[in-house]
Amino acid sequence: MSVNVAIVGATGAVGQEFLTVLAERKFPIKNLLLLASARSAGKHLEFAGKTYTVQELTKDSFKDVTIAFFSAGGNVSREFAPAAVAAGAVVVDNTSAFRMKQGVPLVVPEVNPEQIAKHNGLIANPNCSTIIMNVPVWPLHRANRIRRIIVSTYQAVSGAGAAGLRELEQQIKAYAGGAAIERHLFPHQIVHNLFSHNTKIADNGYNEEENKMVNETRKIFGDPRIMVSATCVRVPIPRAHSESINLEFDRPITPEEVRQILSLAPGVKIVDDREKNYFPMPLDASGKDDVLVGRIRQDISRDDGRGIELFVSGDQVRKGAATNAVQIAEKLVASS
Amino acid sequence: MSVNVAIVGATGAVGQEFLTVLAERKFPIKNLLLLASARSAGKHLEFAGKTYTVQELTKDSFKDVTIAFFSAGGNVSREFAPAAVAAGAVVVDNTSAFRMKQGVPLVVPEVNPEQIAKHNGLIANPNCSTIIMNVPVWPLHRANRIRRIIVSTYQAVSGAGAAGLRELEQQIKAYAGGAAIERHLFPHQIVHNLFSHNTKIADNGYNEEENKMVNETRKIFGDPRIMVSATCVRVPIPRAHSESINLEFDRPITPEEVRQILSLAPGVKIVDDREKNYFPMPLDASGKDDVLVGRIRQDISRDDGRGIELFVSGDQVRKGAATNAVQIAEKLVASS
Repeated sequence: MSVNVAIVGATGAVGQEFLTVLAERKFPIKNLLLLASARSAGKHLEFAGKTYTVQELTKDSFKDVTIAFFSAGGNVSREFAPAAVAAGAVVVDNTSAFRMKQGVPLVVPEVNPEQIAKHNGLIANPNCSTIIMNVPVWPLHRANRIRRIIVSTYQAVSGAGAAGLRELEQQIKAYAGGAAIERHLFPHQIVHNLFSHNTKIADNGYNEEENKMVNETRKIFGDPRIMVSATCVRVPIPRAHSESINLEFDRPITPEEVRQILSLAPGVKIVDDREKNYFPMPLDASGKDDVLVGRIRQDISRDDGRGIELFVSGDQVRKGAATNAVQIAEKLVASS
Repeated sequence: MSVNVAIVGATGAVGQEFLTVLAERKFPIKNLLLLASARSAGKHLEFAGKTYTVQELTKDSFKDVTIAFFSAGGNVSREFAPAAVAAGAVVVDNTSAFRMKQGVPLVVPEVNPEQIAKHNGLIANPNCSTIIMNVPVWPLHRANRIRRIIVSTYQAVSGAGAAGLRELEQQIKAYAGGAAIERHLFPHQIVHNLFSHNTKIADNGYNEEENKMVNETRKIFGDPRIMVSATCVRVPIPRAHSESINLEFDRPITPEEVRQILSLAPGVKIVDDREKNYFPMPLDASGKDDVLVGRIRQDISRDDGRGIELFVSGDQVRKGAATNAVQIAEKLVASS
């Protein structure tokens, strides 16, 4: 069955990746509609050898659309997603607008694909750092309940979209050429620097990105008991987020058991060569769908064998956004 | 009292910083002797307006030397430090050669200055990541015993010396100019990438740098019970290490108490502006002696109030190496 697909935010970093991933995976598209703000309308984009003209997004854009991927920021989703749903489309929303809303499935297909069928026109795609953590952690959680996660991230600039990538590029070139380093997007210099993720700090002292990792993981795992503390940091890396993850399990678990479970886990690739000192790196994760997992070791700060340390890298534009959303859409199409 | 000072490894990154710090702090130098390998002998270095010629390091180099700073790698320390001690010098060794040896004080002056007097000619300067963690964590440990530390690092390339800095610079320039990126020092590309600290992985699955943070912290704190798990990561930052630190205390503690303790702690500067989203960054920590501490918040993954999260940045060439060693030497001089 072929379906009519709309991409809202087609000219953004994730929008572009939607086109790449849809083409790669030969998603069964009948008609493709590329939507963006008035500013970007009229631009031409290529898809599968054909040129498309970007249309201006309006509330009337969604006639006959089967699946609409939204990736143009939370405000655009809040304003236009209801119109898409009203027109009969299923919205797969990549923003945080509806993620924590009751009745809206929040889905990582490797974790909770059964939630997809429960949608009421809206399915939320989780935060990128959350997805990259959940893919390897979920199969471990199923085998031996995880009580607590302490995670520190190393997040690429393209998590802030194409403008984030541009800012790093411009600052690198300015630095290399001896020119003054200008800031346009990030509050702090990013070349030669790193900084706490620049989202608003909530009353609990955690920033929005960190609280997303906590709350979304609970919803996706369907386990309100799991405790998570996250520290989210932006680093001068173009693409792919890395995460240092400390896990506390219900019962003792060995690195060998973890390796065994992860070797069978969908969406995971073990990169853990102690001899060659070869572990997950953003450079290797970029452009891939698998989350790379390594540094698998027993947490030596516990003497009860219930701790495991991991280090992961995953492409946040692909599995952290576009690939995850397209996987959701594939399951929608398969079940319709 | 003025003393005769020798610097072994004077031409290296830390050696250079020794000169800067000794001059800044007006260390009471009578004669200054700059030592290095035969390859670097004959080079000229400036100190306090005077030009010095680097001499070749031999076992006879240390006649009349009062304090010898060693920073030319563990092998050089193992080979030549005993000769310096035999000649009557006190060696302040910046390498890992003697750190864990019984009878050799391992000193962070803000933590265990009383150990300095116990030396038998050798005092070890701790690992840079360890120092940067210990300065803010120690005053908290004194107030409320810390049971467990989970730390993930973001380590600058100059932790690998001048050659590390050069490698990042060359790769940035190659990237900006569209040239091929060459590797000489690090096993992996560092521009646009990060990787697990490339020291040997021990049987416990942790690399050398991580095991140093565990074992040295126990020795410096004089507390073999403290549990530490570290994940050490190299990031494309020229200077200053950052660390995401999760602390488990013996008794409940609030962020306000932590702030109060740290506001009085020597060597610590609180940078924790939630409104302005301004927290410790390596760019701000570079060239400074204080360890910047922020993101001070209650660990929400515990419900017993015994957890605190911190994010710190500190200049690993200064407080993590040269400044710490010179502080030790100042106390030696003051007590002699």
